[in-house]
Amino acid sequence: MDILELVRTLKTSNDSKIVMLVADGLGGLPQQLGGPTELEAANTPHLDALAAGGVSGSMIPIKPGITPGSGPGHLGLFGYDPLKFVIGRGALEATGVGFSLGPDDVAIRCNFCSLDAAGRITDRRAGRIPTEQSAPLAVGLRQIELPGVELFVEPVKEHRFVVVFRGRGLGGNVADTDPQKTGVAPLDPVAGDQQSQRTAEVARQFIAAATKLLSGEPQANGLTMRGFSVKPNLPTYQQVYGLRAAAIAVYPMYKGLAQLVGMEIVGSPGSLEEEIDVLAEAWDDYDFFFVHFKYTDSRGEDGDFDAKVKVIEEFDSVVPRATALGPTVLVVTADHSTPAKLASHSWHPVPTLLVADTCRTDGCRAFGEREALQGGLGRFEAIYLMPLALAHAQRLGKFGA
Amino acid sequence: MDILELVRTLKTSNDSKIVMLVADGLGGLPQQLGGPTELEAANTPHLDALAAGGVSGSMIPIKPGITPGSGPGHLGLFGYDPLKFVIGRGALEATGVGFSLGPDDVAIRCNFCSLDAAGRITDRRAGRIPTEQSAPLAVGLRQIELPGVELFVEPVKEHRFVVVFRGRGLGGNVADTDPQKTGVAPLDPVAGDQQSQRTAEVARQFIAAATKLLSGEPQANGLTMRGFSVKPNLPTYQQVYGLRAAAIAVYPMYKGLAQLVGMEIVGSPGSLEEEIDVLAEAWDDYDFFFVHFKYTDSRGEDGDFDAKVKVIEEFDSVVPRATALGPTVLVVTADHSTPAKLASHSWHPVPTLLVADTCRTDGCRAFGEREALQGGLGRFEAIYLMPLALAHAQRLGKFGA
Repeated sequence: MDILELVRTLKTSNDSKIVMLVADGLGGLPQQLGGPTELEAANTPHLDALAAGGVSGSMIPIKPGITPGSGPGHLGLFGYDPLKFVIGRGALEATGVGFSLGPDDVAIRCNFCSLDAAGRITDRRAGRIPTEQSAPLAVGLRQIELPGVELFVEPVKEHRFVVVFRGRGLGGNVADTDPQKTGVAPLDPVAGDQQSQRTAEVARQFIAAATKLLSGEPQANGLTMRGFSVKPNLPTYQQVYGLRAAAIAVYPMYKGLAQLVGMEIVGSPGSLEEEIDVLAEAWDDYDFFFVHFKYTDSRGEDGDFDAKVKVIEEFDSVVPRATALGPTVLVVTADHSTPAKLASHSWHPVPTLLVADTCRTDGCRAFGEREALQGGLGRFEAIYLMPLALAHAQRLGKFGA
Repeated sequence: MDILELVRTLKTSNDSKIVMLVADGLGGLPQQLGGPTELEAANTPHLDALAAGGVSGSMIPIKPGITPGSGPGHLGLFGYDPLKFVIGRGALEATGVGFSLGPDDVAIRCNFCSLDAAGRITDRRAGRIPTEQSAPLAVGLRQIELPGVELFVEPVKEHRFVVVFRGRGLGGNVADTDPQKTGVAPLDPVAGDQQSQRTAEVARQFIAAATKLLSGEPQANGLTMRGFSVKPNLPTYQQVYGLRAAAIAVYPMYKGLAQLVGMEIVGSPGSLEEEIDVLAEAWDDYDFFFVHFKYTDSRGEDGDFDAKVKVIEEFDSVVPRATALGPTVLVVTADHSTPAKLASHSWHPVPTLLVADTCRTDGCRAFGEREALQGGLGRFEAIYLMPLALAHAQRLGKFGA
């Protein structure tokens, strides 16, 4: 029995409210040895007060040394073992553009590519064609008709787009057509099992029709398909935790990830302030609130230490509005670290804090990576964050008599 | 291979002595933010001296956020993964009243209930009939004769009693008869597998005979049966650890749990002082001693912070008598926390200390929850406590060459 199954058997109900504030990519690194991280450098009086009154810890997103993408990072936060529950790449890409996958869907990540006269790939990314040019091409592919299958095509960014086939009995086990090198033709979409034969056949038809439509294009005259995948079969927050869960996010990726675990998307906020407005408005209707703040990750990805410090301070400034609502349990965390020094996601543990009436004093006085090392939550894996939040909300019964 | 199997292959023998002092429910919570826990508030000079000379840690009974009952809590302490080894509810209840289950036994938790003239339940607990009235009724049921099966009936408390059927080939997979609501008749005991058909039939005969015997009772004129279970199949301390293990406890539940892993029950002490007397008397005859102290849990369950502080101080006062015996390894721990603030078991980690000549200095100066966070044992799951104790007793060989 794993922790998710155990929690499922122990869940009880009450009128507690749990708020999880996720500052994406919050954890950081010092610019030089011995210096502060972005969070430690930031002036965060409200988060520091929460750390003083709650318990802190150093959370490992997946396992030590493993850097998560947004999908596994959020699955872990939501309490689903990312090594057990896998979101296919196509499904994640579709989720990221706000496409709500259904049970009859197969989603595929596609790239425009450049082909020579013999059909061999000369550029796997079609010269990184700008989005203004690629998006109309992707939309143009919607005119393709596939017998017995509904087709969806969504532009992404530059050379990327997403294709979804909708139809009964379409398996997701089809090999990538991207040969990962130039000078050869795209591969045939080969089915890996009986159930996916039809998917492979539909993909062949789609590729043929698309290549015909794109034949006059100077750069994007071909395509490759990768990461064929069906909607992941995740138990919902209601099923596992007995929680009516709301997701409040600006970006489609995070709304999509929350939807995969059965959260309801609430509002359509455009900023962190508006997210807290939505939180307040939805307060009475849900038990659990996932609030996602994107820009800590964005500024980390930019490699801009000072800008990340600034958005952390912006994040801090809205915290009192969340605490004023009186959550039974307030969690502040992240799906992973995004140190400006690395300008990318990283494996470093995420400073995490939990505030509830049932916290034991741990001596932390501020919210930061070094303080969190001394915290009462210790060093723990992300999949235990939801069980801890539920325990402090007194929503878990005793295990055994 | 899990840790128990690994330890089993590595065990060696010597003349070391391991003492595990279990102060049930020891871990606590501050009464108000920033304040001390019960253990931190208590004056515990002897435990503090041990912490200064040994290593401390913050022990997670099961997994983060999970509150254990006494069964899983002790299984974890004894080194048996509580998520793998499950003690059925009936078996635990029988264990709790000191009934020593054998291999041919099926144990069942029973409740007296109130039935109306049509046989429908009007009160699932027979008005919580007092023990003085219910115990003789339970004893009266012993006169029931079941062909080919030996019957045991043990009163518990108020409306509760335990029934054990003893006979060859009785399976434990029978559905509860408690419908969990009033206004309907008790359910039929339905077998869940072929092996349990006979158990279900015996249960039907028992229910019919018991209902007849109870028919004149004003309140307790019916019964329900729950948690049918056979004796859990646990490897013994001798088999796994090569230890001759003694259990010293006042309450039947803890003696019973220790017996399930093959410990011998030594003496019949009535107090903590008497438990230490027994420890001294049995010193030469065993390698491992489990000494259980109940009242830290009891006062926590009472919600009485000051009384829990007082019994912790009482516990501290006998510690020198245990150390004077010169154990190779002394462990002080608990099966779970029972904060007075919650008046119940909780999921909070348990402050734990281990003293041996092979301890590395860790800087802890006192025994308490905050100090333990900084301790050399770090944050660890209970199932690793026995391997650590055995290692410090130099009873584990090297793994691999």
